[in-house]
Amino acid sequence: MAAPAPLSPLAPKTYPALPPIAGVRFATIAAGVRYAGRTDVMMAVFDEPAAVAGVFTRSKCPSAPVDWCRAHLKGGRARALIVNSGNANAFTGGLGLAAVAHVAEAAAKAIGAGPSEIFMASTGVIGEPLDAARIARVIDTLAAEARDDALLGAAKAIMTTDTYPKIATARVKLGDAEVIINGIAKGAGMIAPDMATMLSYVFTDASIASDALQAMLSKSVERSFNAITVDSDTSTSDTLMIFATGAAEGAPHIGDAADARAAAFRRALDRLLRNLAQQVVRDGEGARKFIEVNVEGAATRKAAKRVALSIANSPLVKTACAGEDANWGRVVMAVGKAGEKAERDKLDIFFGKIRVAHAGMRDPVYDESATSAYMKRDSIEITVDLGLGRGRATVWTCDLTKDYVAINGDYRS
Amino acid sequence: MAAPAPLSPLAPKTYPALPPIAGVRFATIAAGVRYAGRTDVMMAVFDEPAAVAGVFTRSKCPSAPVDWCRAHLKGGRARALIVNSGNANAFTGGLGLAAVAHVAEAAAKAIGAGPSEIFMASTGVIGEPLDAARIARVIDTLAAEARDDALLGAAKAIMTTDTYPKIATARVKLGDAEVIINGIAKGAGMIAPDMATMLSYVFTDASIASDALQAMLSKSVERSFNAITVDSDTSTSDTLMIFATGAAEGAPHIGDAADARAAAFRRALDRLLRNLAQQVVRDGEGARKFIEVNVEGAATRKAAKRVALSIANSPLVKTACAGEDANWGRVVMAVGKAGEKAERDKLDIFFGKIRVAHAGMRDPVYDESATSAYMKRDSIEITVDLGLGRGRATVWTCDLTKDYVAINGDYRS
Repeated sequence: MAAPAPLSPLAPKTYPALPPIAGVRFATIAAGVRYAGRTDVMMAVFDEPAAVAGVFTRSKCPSAPVDWCRAHLKGGRARALIVNSGNANAFTGGLGLAAVAHVAEAAAKAIGAGPSEIFMASTGVIGEPLDAARIARVIDTLAAEARDDALLGAAKAIMTTDTYPKIATARVKLGDAEVIINGIAKGAGMIAPDMATMLSYVFTDASIASDALQAMLSKSVERSFNAITVDSDTSTSDTLMIFATGAAEGAPHIGDAADARAAAFRRALDRLLRNLAQQVVRDGEGARKFIEVNVEGAATRKAAKRVALSIANSPLVKTACAGEDANWGRVVMAVGKAGEKAERDKLDIFFGKIRVAHAGMRDPVYDESATSAYMKRDSIEITVDLGLGRGRATVWTCDLTKDYVAINGDYRS
Repeated sequence: MAAPAPLSPLAPKTYPALPPIAGVRFATIAAGVRYAGRTDVMMAVFDEPAAVAGVFTRSKCPSAPVDWCRAHLKGGRARALIVNSGNANAFTGGLGLAAVAHVAEAAAKAIGAGPSEIFMASTGVIGEPLDAARIARVIDTLAAEARDDALLGAAKAIMTTDTYPKIATARVKLGDAEVIINGIAKGAGMIAPDMATMLSYVFTDASIASDALQAMLSKSVERSFNAITVDSDTSTSDTLMIFATGAAEGAPHIGDAADARAAAFRRALDRLLRNLAQQVVRDGEGARKFIEVNVEGAATRKAAKRVALSIANSPLVKTACAGEDANWGRVVMAVGKAGEKAERDKLDIFFGKIRVAHAGMRDPVYDESATSAYMKRDSIEITVDLGLGRGRATVWTCDLTKDYVAINGDYRS
């Protein structure tokens, strides 16, 4: 294990306090899955079955816990969540699924639930068998020690090469009551050095049916976790789950995602997921710049997103940002390679508010020194107007630095 | 302009002599397009109209010379080719096309041809107007000085951040006669620092109709220039052209690409293009390792190629190779994200001849120290057997090093 990286210069300056959420408690422990001297297993225990929804990696080679969670999500009920770092339990064959089942059975027994009500995730080395016994033997302790004020510790226990824990919280009106949404995430690279995965867990005391919860989550994810990229690599284990305990007093039960009473909740969930997703980018391996890519004027929203991701994933755009070079020619290149409709002579490109290219050529009045000064900021906005239609999309990424190569290349297993 | 990079450690140890080809002559000059103290314009002059075929970038924002060449390729006849480095004449609006026309008219006048028989390419900065007068005024000199033994000089004049000129040659039976194929290329990144483009030009004295030439070229390119990637970025200016002078004595005229008499020629063209394409990868920016990715057992050839490109373009696979880390978990990740059918439990992965993963998990007998030793080689083969069908594909790439980031990020315009 390499020495921990220094705190990302893009880390948040302050952290919110996470208010307890009725109906869910957390515990962490140093189980020695792989790391020494740090917590590496977290458990969330729901006092009553919580409604649950999830979104998982699009990888065709998903990890064993992803297979498990997908299979048991249909039940819509969760009694516990267990997450370990240090081992991804991915590409571990039939042993992988057996390991998940072993942990789930231990947890089910400890809290008096069924194994299908236990959800799990693992992040770490791919291809190493997970020693499930190391986790199973700490479950009783975790279940006994779980507390409602221990979510920040849980965010720390699931870190791999993250340089800071990622947390967010919101209070929102639901009917005449107030409910809380808390979220945690980990990331670093889409895969950190040998460490798979972006994981995020959201908890609320609202009472929302699992189908409605799933609809809200699937919509929010498109403009949050599915609108970020660090290095274009997709983990075998990406997982985003939301749990609703329903323990908030006085709040109405929401059975339909479109329920007007839940409008504020949906907006708060959007903001909270976007906040967590951006925190993942700000802790991207080697990141020194936070980059927002806006594409406007595309034929459709889907086309806009594809062009935006082409720009955000381009190594040449990302290295130009690292070098503080307003190299809009590389943005033209990335637009051109995206495969979506583009008309050279209708294209406008902006860095911040500065229009650098207009109508198919360099903007004749663009100020080189103002643009160079803009590129020195630690947050950069690149906006492309394709001039074709009304489709728009925003994605977030970070720059590509020598530190990214060092973190992922100097590492030796 | 940054200092020239040191010679790539993957550069060929020897260069072949390029035999003259009857019917085509070359000249180069230092025209001062952007660089000082080096040649930056090359001209090829065909004594009689040569048959011509070409393949161009898939970018939706192609350069002005790409638009020009595409439009005039239908004529099937070439009298001259002019290539400049230092300025890509891309994203230069209506001025861009006017600049190409200006150079073409000067060349047409100098050699007594029509402008539509003049082909052109430009490689260099995107978005800067090309000063066509600087090129037009040297055309008479180039036309007067063109010699049949000056192709190596032409290969040097079109270099941008390339650390060596890329050349290849073949002699091949065509009917009862022998013909020659010579080729040159330049690359570096798909886009070098502010420098667009992969360019390649092939010349032969065979007599082949332009339609037949186009069919042969389009087929060969799929397993050569369309099977390489340095950084997944596609230039606005990529151009591959072939010219057949028909001046070889005694060789039959080939009117149909499938003509059995041209079988050896087709194979030689395949090999020559693959050789040039691999030379481009070996000179990829910052490259220290040449990587061959083989995908076998896919449902189709197209699926195999998509999976192979997903592996070859993965920053995490490329940084692992740079770090000499046999990190096959990242290969699993890249297979999984490709979007093609894959069954985790049928997957085999090899580094060289060493099987590291088998049937969905780590190969139990795999030898870590032998694999580590293998990764120290300067050429690495990664083979994935998907175990699903008979589709196979091979692509070539290089590793991702800190030098790539330095070349593309430290550069300031």
